[in-house]
Amino acid sequence: MPSLSALNAPHVVVDWGTTSFRAVLLAADGTQRDRIETGDGIQFVEKGSFETRLLTLLAPWLSAEGALDIVLVGMVTSRNGWIEVPYVPCPCAVEDLAKGTITRTLANGSRAILLPGITDPARAPFPDVMRGEETQIVGFGLDRDATLVLPGTHSKWARVAGGRISGFRTFVTGEFFALLTQHSFIARAAAGSESAGEDMGAFERGIVDGAPEGAEGDAMLSLVFAARTGMLAGKLAPGDIRDYVSGLLIAQEFRQARNCGFFARGERIGIVGNDGLNRRYAIVARHFGLDVMDGSDHAAIDGARQILAAAKGDLT
Amino acid sequence: MPSLSALNAPHVVVDWGTTSFRAVLLAADGTQRDRIETGDGIQFVEKGSFETRLLTLLAPWLSAEGALDIVLVGMVTSRNGWIEVPYVPCPCAVEDLAKGTITRTLANGSRAILLPGITDPARAPFPDVMRGEETQIVGFGLDRDATLVLPGTHSKWARVAGGRISGFRTFVTGEFFALLTQHSFIARAAAGSESAGEDMGAFERGIVDGAPEGAEGDAMLSLVFAARTGMLAGKLAPGDIRDYVSGLLIAQEFRQARNCGFFARGERIGIVGNDGLNRRYAIVARHFGLDVMDGSDHAAIDGARQILAAAKGDLT
Repeated sequence: MPSLSALNAPHVVVDWGTTSFRAVLLAADGTQRDRIETGDGIQFVEKGSFETRLLTLLAPWLSAEGALDIVLVGMVTSRNGWIEVPYVPCPCAVEDLAKGTITRTLANGSRAILLPGITDPARAPFPDVMRGEETQIVGFGLDRDATLVLPGTHSKWARVAGGRISGFRTFVTGEFFALLTQHSFIARAAAGSESAGEDMGAFERGIVDGAPEGAEGDAMLSLVFAARTGMLAGKLAPGDIRDYVSGLLIAQEFRQARNCGFFARGERIGIVGNDGLNRRYAIVARHFGLDVMDGSDHAAIDGARQILAAAKGDLT
Repeated sequence: MPSLSALNAPHVVVDWGTTSFRAVLLAADGTQRDRIETGDGIQFVEKGSFETRLLTLLAPWLSAEGALDIVLVGMVTSRNGWIEVPYVPCPCAVEDLAKGTITRTLANGSRAILLPGITDPARAPFPDVMRGEETQIVGFGLDRDATLVLPGTHSKWARVAGGRISGFRTFVTGEFFALLTQHSFIARAAAGSESAGEDMGAFERGIVDGAPEGAEGDAMLSLVFAARTGMLAGKLAPGDIRDYVSGLLIAQEFRQARNCGFFARGERIGIVGNDGLNRRYAIVARHFGLDVMDGSDHAAIDGARQILAAAKGDLT
């Protein structure tokens, strides 16, 4: 792991996504000193005006501190953002990510350091990709061999081994959940019951029904129909449906990840992220016989600082 | 199989669904003499006024022919329709379906015969259901032991054995296809390319990528992400996406059905239905080493006639 002692001055980490701009000002030791959050997502920024917009948004800090190192992660590093930073192939260590950064010196002398995403060329039928989650994985730590899951619209399962991210795979679980509960026969069945609040009992029933042992557990296209047949059988109420389907789909994700070799019963798994799904993923993980290591809420910032430290080590 | 000689007079078969009303007037021997199709779906009919609406819609035939036997299938037999006809449990023969019908004598002396749906109580976690497809299965024929697939929004896979429908399972493949191509990241990727027309090459690539051998083939939540990574890798064009995803999902359906025991390589399969998907399902079936028996376009009418004949045998 790179020494964070390379960070001997305040610095900024910016998560600049499609719909929002979120920046933190950090002391050299990582203490958060200030935050700026706005709705200036990259979709609202014209090609060619990213630098100006960045300097404007961070003007309060830059006036007070002078030139700063500004680490940028998120869609700002994609084809639709400021500068497309090529994916770094797995297996990769922090140093590989640092080498994959693109650095620009800005008008006021600050340095923008754009972080790369990563790709897994071993994945079939096409190389898999992530952009942002690799920084969270670094923040979680590459010093323990482990399987990590990062819940989300497009969940990422990754293997860490020998101080590197050795491979990963995307599961579009969150997207399927949104599609089913907003637009499908399930949405119609659950209509009008949204105020019922969270029902963890229904969630746990979904886990059990969503990943039965035996080959029938692989029949996901069939298993989700239980959301309808359960209602017809009088065993599910409209207010149960959202949480039942949530449990069913996350259990399917774990079953499929297990079949892909990501874990076996009795192992430990790290759950990384802060999108509100960690608790649900932890419940499912325990159902699959896993020990859970909870990731810090600051994994993204911690990871960005480590990559910055490694990049500075290269530069100085 | 019941003798169709019980049908010694003209009769009517009505498929009355949520959004449409479709009736055919048949001679005793099954020859189609006339059709009436309107937009009077059951959602536009008030509870209590189904009989009046039916007699009004069929007035031209009833004036000319007098009282007729009128077989009704579709959502008109559901909780939201005219009369809820209870599901008949599998395994079931034509005679069981005939016994499950509900008959009403109408104001002009005609008889309305509402056909039941069927349920498979052996299915976990809840009994599976169909309403309408069982009539198509009867029309295809129960005299050959076989696995049948009825493609659709909610595809049905059924086993026919010993002259009975022995069991079945629903796969929501068509619904997933619509959700993914209308509302998801895939919809956004394919936007603007809808006029490209059918691309069976992309469809066949989807089949291969959608059901690889080995445990990774079970990871459907991951496999569909290939629609994005294939574009990022420059291997899929926006115009390919719809057909690629169609192939991928139908191949997943076959893989899952195979894992559930519906078929093995080298067997024969019947493809029943007329929703335009039969050709695609036949291509995927051959990819899985199956011999295809094509169902007639008239399976629903043929089945309704057989159940009517059996019901009349009971009544007379």
